[in-house]
Amino acid sequence: MNILLASTSTLYGGNYLEYLAEELVKLYQGIDEILFIPFARPSGISLDDYTLKVAGYFSKINIKVKGLHEFKDKVEAINSAKAYFTGGGNTFLLVKTLHDENLMTVLKTNLENGKPYLGTSAGSNIGGLNMQTTNDMPIVIPSNFNCMGLVPFNINAHYLDPNPELQHNGETRETRILEFLTQNEIKVVGLREGNWIRRIGDRITVEGLHNTRIFENGKEPYEVKTGSAL
Amino acid sequence: MNILLASTSTLYGGNYLEYLAEELVKLYQGIDEILFIPFARPSGISLDDYTLKVAGYFSKINIKVKGLHEFKDKVEAINSAKAYFTGGGNTFLLVKTLHDENLMTVLKTNLENGKPYLGTSAGSNIGGLNMQTTNDMPIVIPSNFNCMGLVPFNINAHYLDPNPELQHNGETRETRILEFLTQNEIKVVGLREGNWIRRIGDRITVEGLHNTRIFENGKEPYEVKTGSAL
Repeated sequence: MNILLASTSTLYGGNYLEYLAEELVKLYQGIDEILFIPFARPSGISLDDYTLKVAGYFSKINIKVKGLHEFKDKVEAINSAKAYFTGGGNTFLLVKTLHDENLMTVLKTNLENGKPYLGTSAGSNIGGLNMQTTNDMPIVIPSNFNCMGLVPFNINAHYLDPNPELQHNGETRETRILEFLTQNEIKVVGLREGNWIRRIGDRITVEGLHNTRIFENGKEPYEVKTGSAL
Repeated sequence: MNILLASTSTLYGGNYLEYLAEELVKLYQGIDEILFIPFARPSGISLDDYTLKVAGYFSKINIKVKGLHEFKDKVEAINSAKAYFTGGGNTFLLVKTLHDENLMTVLKTNLENGKPYLGTSAGSNIGGLNMQTTNDMPIVIPSNFNCMGLVPFNINAHYLDPNPELQHNGETRETRILEFLTQNEIKVVGLREGNWIRRIGDRITVEGLHNTRIFENGKEPYEVKTGSAL
């Protein structure tokens, strides 16, 4: 496999996908066109507008972009594509659409055959075992919460450390993930913004600017250094 | 109906339920025992420990507390109770448990008959039409996302204003609720911490320390003053 699952598309003060530019050149080496999966629709953006935004970035590195929604036969479109990118937005909407149209397993099969895949945020969540560690609001209800399992754990994108100055009593991200572990035996990788998971063949590493926080049943949460194998 | 749905149980720097003390005396007038619904289990606390914590508070105002989990026949326990309190925690876990045990409609029927009800956080979310505007993580999957509809809208508890200083690209609460409105035609009431909804008979008002932010299809989000009827 050749997979990159990033916490976010955009760093604070940066431009869309900019911080990943070097990685994307390596991921998509020899590829001149990718299939974009726009169904997460951040802020309710239209599928066309979202695809245009992504095409705008990729034109700078000489890669053409087609939106999956443009195809009548989406299964065929996935099977014919050379590489993929799934953008962020609402994970419930993304997973519902992929399951309703029977696309989740088709995509997984193509990725297991070695075609390159980039996910950001919701697009990274679907690389985990299931979507039950999303931060998103359940604005729609998927028929099934299972994801592709490109990595043998769940992902929490946009992982956010507790802010001791915040005068707010909503649960911290860590509390939410620990609640997940009371109900599930699945390892959770908390990906801070600026971090990503890279899978090349069977080797899975955490990469990027920060340490990565890992949550497992029966252990205190712990940190691993960037570059570590998982 | 005689309902109080609070954004949070505890204000920053305060003690459990303390800021609601005056309201609770009015809500539970003439009541010496309440049934506590502990299934949301914040931070995975046990049902017994959660009930003890709640009983500790209510003993100060001379009200006894029984936990719903202590009863073999929970339907009968709800039907026999004089008044109720559902505490916060994980809304998915709360809603799943209530539906799995066929308790949601039993509770609703009792509340429609005028028995007093207090909800905080997840316990307030279940007073809305459905739980699809929760902030919680989907750590379990309910069979059904519908709630009691004690008010003709959805609630977003712990509503949090965008923080312009936050160097984090996760979605703001407002963005999440606006995404919900792209998929649903349901009014959403954003309850800041320190605010609550009060329903007495047919009159529904927003109460507490702050303005309340309302989200409706086809309108800009707007603010209503404390004390306003909804």
